[in-house]
Amino acid sequence: MAKVAVVYHSGYGHTAEQAKAVIRGADSVAGTNTNLIPVDQIEQHWTTLEAADAIIFGSPTYMGSASAQFKTFMDASSKPWYTQTWKNKIAAGFTNSASQNGDKLNTLIQLAIFAAQHSMIWVGLDLMPGNNNSKGSVDDLNRLGGFMGALAQSNADQGPEAGPIASDLKTAERLGARVAEVANQFLAGRK
Amino acid sequence: MAKVAVVYHSGYGHTAEQAKAVIRGADSVAGTNTNLIPVDQIEQHWTTLEAADAIIFGSPTYMGSASAQFKTFMDASSKPWYTQTWKNKIAAGFTNSASQNGDKLNTLIQLAIFAAQHSMIWVGLDLMPGNNNSKGSVDDLNRLGGFMGALAQSNADQGPEAGPIASDLKTAERLGARVAEVANQFLAGRK
Amino acid sequence: MAKVAVVYHSGYGHTAEQAKAVIRGADSVAGTNTNLIPVDQIEQHWTTLEAADAIIFGSPTYMGSASAQFKTFMDASSKPWYTQTWKNKIAAGFTNSASQNGDKLNTLIQLAIFAAQHSMIWVGLDLMPGNNNSKGSVDDLNRLGGFMGALAQSNADQGPEAGPIASDLKTAERLGARVAEVANQFLAGRK
Amino acid sequence: MAKVAVVYHSGYGHTAEQAKAVIRGADSVAGTNTNLIPVDQIEQHWTTLEAADAIIFGSPTYMGSASAQFKTFMDASSKPWYTQTWKNKIAAGFTNSASQNGDKLNTLIQLAIFAAQHSMIWVGLDLMPGNNNSKGSVDDLNRLGGFMGALAQSNADQGPEAGPIASDLKTAERLGARVAEVANQFLAGRK
Repeated sequence: MAKVAVVYHSGYGHTAEQAKAVIRGADSVAGTNTNLIPVDQIEQHWTTLEAADAIIFGSPTYMGSASAQFKTFMDASSKPWYTQTWKNKIAAGFTNSASQNGDKLNTLIQLAIFAAQHSMIWVGLDLMPGNNNSKGSVDDLNRLGGFMGALAQSNADQGPEAGPIASDLKTAERLGARVAEVANQFLAGRK
Repeated sequence: MAKVAVVYHSGYGHTAEQAKAVIRGADSVAGTNTNLIPVDQIEQHWTTLEAADAIIFGSPTYMGSASAQFKTFMDASSKPWYTQTWKNKIAAGFTNSASQNGDKLNTLIQLAIFAAQHSMIWVGLDLMPGNNNSKGSVDDLNRLGGFMGALAQSNADQGPEAGPIASDLKTAERLGARVAEVANQFLAGRK
Repeated sequence: MAKVAVVYHSGYGHTAEQAKAVIRGADSVAGTNTNLIPVDQIEQHWTTLEAADAIIFGSPTYMGSASAQFKTFMDASSKPWYTQTWKNKIAAGFTNSASQNGDKLNTLIQLAIFAAQHSMIWVGLDLMPGNNNSKGSVDDLNRLGGFMGALAQSNADQGPEAGPIASDLKTAERLGARVAEVANQFLAGRK
Repeated sequence: MAKVAVVYHSGYGHTAEQAKAVIRGADSVAGTNTNLIPVDQIEQHWTTLEAADAIIFGSPTYMGSASAQFKTFMDASSKPWYTQTWKNKIAAGFTNSASQNGDKLNTLIQLAIFAAQHSMIWVGLDLMPGNNNSKGSVDDLNRLGGFMGALAQSNADQGPEAGPIASDLKTAERLGARVAEVANQFLAGRK
């Protein structure tokens, strides 16, 4: 029974929708226990993270990297870092911003480096890029063409009821399912 | 009279279109002299680069970073690096790939780090992101939302006659014009 | 008369020493006016930044990227970003951490992407790498071999009286001087 | 019995020493089968990679990213990418350069993004940083303070008999052992 935790920050609700989709994906994998943790409730959840087999990190991309609110959590994790409590947990990441590209990749790189400092094992998407040919559309899975994690785009002038759009949420679901699959396999292989 | 050189690689012709657009942009700025250098002709052009006030680097994004052909040129530049011949030249970059995001940002980061090793001065775009709101479209300038340089997306199943699309080419033109403006101003300020 | 501002965060005083060294370097260039702004006093200094010709960003590297305190400032700058008030200002960056490498480069990349979003112009170091050959030592200028900006390393168990060491501080001074030189030249070239 | 392959390029022999150390580490883990593949012999080894449970990528850092020779291999892997043949294999990376920092992190990021495109699972080091306190020295394990993979530094004026130094080689050994451990556990958990 793999335990998957999602820790996320959301400024306007878009990234929260993406986080919920990741959880839905993880829940769809048999034998998975999930926890959705808004970063402002982290104080009650350090032990949840300690017990988790996988932690998925989610943040909007603000000015080219993870939000200050999410970075506050990352910096506070120097305590479990020092004891390497998260070693060998599966890690993954997702991010949302208004621009199509919007330097979102840099947030995923930041999260992957962070996870590496914790000696975690990084799992990305396993989806070919969508919307990259003449028959493609924004409704394709992985329509933004990310690999290190799940990307979403939400219009700057619309609330979370309008974005991320369905294809981005399905992409996030796949990330959650993939992490659950990998975490379960890795757990099953433990001596 | 600022001299602007564009060095680029193009596998299938898409990045070549983007390179030509960058040159058009630079040419549109009064007092600018331009040179378009396909990377396979670099052997005849090291002195052109040495004489340039600005060098703009362009490569497709293959497997998440600049193409091997372009990297061959980058590695060969260890000679001018050793003598710091390119010091204080203006630098900029552009890249094309089939995916919307497609890890293109990583190519621009790679080029910016490369330019920093040469003690060059990096100029990005000065365009707000397009296609990031409910009234936006793929026809917006900077529709992909890049900042470190000019991004373009071309469908995987179409030739350079179909992509990059007009908005991406205009974005590339703006990068060329901006580099020419900055190079001219920087040149005018030299004692 | 170029105006150079340094905005920085320092958790334990090491990065503050580096910031002071950057200011010393900028002050050493004739015709330069400097401002040293701790990030917790930023509220009184948004107009200082608006008036500056160059802004140099400094942060410790915590868990692989800029500190949450510094990121709070970066996120708050979305206001001048929206109006592109910092467009064409010179930008640069510096960072300190306890490890020799310690993912410091990622902080500089984060700052360079941030500056690009503001349409600023990025200036790195112009120093060859030190301590990279059999005659080298930790006393060499640029002993850590950075290019995108100034790197410093301070021991985890010592205060700012012991680190950054002299070579790192001289490297920071060179960054400050270089930014002042480039800012003055760029200013002189304005029509 | 996990199969671990190391694919590497080495310009002057330093990275080859690092590659051999990675193999030694992997060989030290019971139930591991290893293959050391110089990148110029890759044509005979695509099936070795296809059969591997883990692939570790190694390249010198030239001008801030993986060498052109290694990038040629990366670009050629677009074939197994297209069929996602390497999906769920464990991936890791190592790099060497003459500078202490020398933008080596950017090579590891480049390799991690590359691995993510192949839907591989990224494993970094599990070593705390060395040489980061007043009692530290260059003889510490992970003396350069890397996390995404194994870093090594070799003096520019010395051959592979002098560098990478013993601590860097032991760090590389640990990466190899860690990858073998994770690959074996992941393999054991497969249904």
